Amino acid sequence: MKTIGYAAHSAEKDLVPFSFERRSLKDNDVAIEILYSGICHSDLHTVKGDWGEQTYPLIPGHEIIGKVIEVGSSVKKFKIGESVGVGCMVDSCQTCDQCEKSEEMFCRSGLIATYGSEDKHMGGITQGGYSKHIVVREEFVLKVSEKLDLSKAAPILCAGITMYTPLKKWHVSRGTRVGIVGFGGLGHMGVKLAVAMGAEVTVITRSKGKEDVAKSLGAKGILVSSDEDAMEKAGSSFDVILDTVPVKHDFNTYTPLLDVDGTLVLVGQIGEMEEPLTLPLIFGRRRIAGSLIGGIKDTQEVLDFCAEHGIHPDCEHIEPSQVNEAWAKLLNENPAHRYVMNMESLSLK
Amino acid sequence: MKTIGYAAHSAEKDLVPFSFERRSLKDNDVAIEILYSGICHSDLHTVKGDWGEQTYPLIPGHEIIGKVIEVGSSVKKFKIGESVGVGCMVDSCQTCDQCEKSEEMFCRSGLIATYGSEDKHMGGITQGGYSKHIVVREEFVLKVSEKLDLSKAAPILCAGITMYTPLKKWHVSRGTRVGIVGFGGLGHMGVKLAVAMGAEVTVITRSKGKEDVAKSLGAKGILVSSDEDAMEKAGSSFDVILDTVPVKHDFNTYTPLLDVDGTLVLVGQIGEMEEPLTLPLIFGRRRIAGSLIGGIKDTQEVLDFCAEHGIHPDCEHIEPSQVNEAWAKLLNENPAHRYVMNMESLSLK
Repeated sequence: MKTIGYAAHSAEKDLVPFSFERRSLKDNDVAIEILYSGICHSDLHTVKGDWGEQTYPLIPGHEIIGKVIEVGSSVKKFKIGESVGVGCMVDSCQTCDQCEKSEEMFCRSGLIATYGSEDKHMGGITQGGYSKHIVVREEFVLKVSEKLDLSKAAPILCAGITMYTPLKKWHVSRGTRVGIVGFGGLGHMGVKLAVAMGAEVTVITRSKGKEDVAKSLGAKGILVSSDEDAMEKAGSSFDVILDTVPVKHDFNTYTPLLDVDGTLVLVGQIGEMEEPLTLPLIFGRRRIAGSLIGGIKDTQEVLDFCAEHGIHPDCEHIEPSQVNEAWAKLLNENPAHRYVMNMESLSLK
Repeated sequence: MKTIGYAAHSAEKDLVPFSFERRSLKDNDVAIEILYSGICHSDLHTVKGDWGEQTYPLIPGHEIIGKVIEVGSSVKKFKIGESVGVGCMVDSCQTCDQCEKSEEMFCRSGLIATYGSEDKHMGGITQGGYSKHIVVREEFVLKVSEKLDLSKAAPILCAGITMYTPLKKWHVSRGTRVGIVGFGGLGHMGVKLAVAMGAEVTVITRSKGKEDVAKSLGAKGILVSSDEDAMEKAGSSFDVILDTVPVKHDFNTYTPLLDVDGTLVLVGQIGEMEEPLTLPLIFGRRRIAGSLIGGIKDTQEVLDFCAEHGIHPDCEHIEPSQVNEAWAKLLNENPAHRYVMNMESLSLK
């Protein structure tokens, strides 16, 4: 299938329109016309080579909402015309212990990411959602409820699941004291999800300016991390803190905020952190944990959870042609919303 | 009650014999003649001021085995002549949520440590187990089973509980893959306890020389941390690793050894660690946790567990007069056993 996307041809250059082929459908494949494509901070990092060398041309994008336009002969779960989503993964071995638990991101043979992984069907690499069409095996296609506004659902597939998994893993429920560090695309979804789970949510941020926005999303307030008195008073007062800050920083700032057996979950920074102090860890039996997106079962769960609770990420809609501009803003401003591309204007000509 | 101990009169000077008073018994107090007193690495750190300024004279010691010689009028649990133990704590508020869960080390009002804490009865500071007698409120006195060899039981009260708590907290049981980093006083007890719980235990060490000792304690073998090939092969193969190394080090060496949802528990180093990399944490959903001794209920449990399984720490017995020599060896050699003082020769004259 001939299609078109926005591809990077090197780590340095802007994304440009690029025609390419999607595979012909296998029995268990679903072909999707992409309607909305979210922009994730990790798209930039990957394309710019921050996390390792890449193969180009590379079409990023792993927050995909679309309509089924064709299904393989053995596909049971999906029909033409249905609304569907695709997230960060498009394949895995399906047989190892992790895949059997639907923790496909930890597949023992390695997950096949939506873009930049080896493409065993077409050769080369998998190409992502900044494109008009995608073909994905049934097991990695998600159902999107009619209750969701399709134009705003795409970021649930990465930002949403990235926050949902640790909230679930660390047993967030009614009354859990949750802190969210960093109030960008991930952070604001974290607030919405944790509030809907019944948690008491505080945004931990460097600037006072975000209090009104935080409260409007259901947070009980903000804690200004530069305010030493406030930080000391808030000692031992959180059960779970999700740290979404995507640059090297000092988590000693946050560990003393945790109560006994509390957990600081790192989801933002991939790389080095400042030297940690073990004293707050040992003398409060506190924990630091990493968390990576979530499995297919949990991804379906967070889509359904958002549908049920009327949760949509805050989105700013742009045209695909504005993608380079949006990337620049993401790098410089860390806005508390997600850019979502309306893919309608992208045409094969 | 007049008694005698070995006290430090400053951070720099050797311990010397020192006569002092223990309090007269309150209704709920138990007076103990100390028979054996274990030497813990933390005694040195505290006395030398490594963890903050101290008040002197200071008598360290929180691994105490003795006989009851007197009980207060309301004491129900203990009789004169019984074998008992005292560990790292001698008091707490007994009313907060942590005390109610028998996590007295996290008492909201602050625990009263066996030595160096404020002594609300006598003024000054609490004085520890490098002494002939101690008076402790009933709730902080432990029963010592007849099945235990009294001369070797003292280190269970700190080294034992320090390893037992994280093994229990992180659900170590039959088949759990446990790594023990550092093979000194803590490490060798960790091996014995984890083996008795049915775990598959590996000692992770810098030198090959410790394989025979490790195996003789029930470990399946050792993993030499300087052997890059072996370390890479051992990736993702541990559920829980207890890190007992008491100096600044790099836990990036150990985190990749953990399987998904595995936990590295820090119990040795109190201070800074090298800069951590978040990649192994995030891409394996791994965790780093601290752990601090254990509550009174768990301390009784580990004493009973050791009695039931015939576990004794490996001890080298010394006279109290040899304490300064033993401290010097602890600093320089990190022996895979505990020094225990036989307190019989210490007399009031």
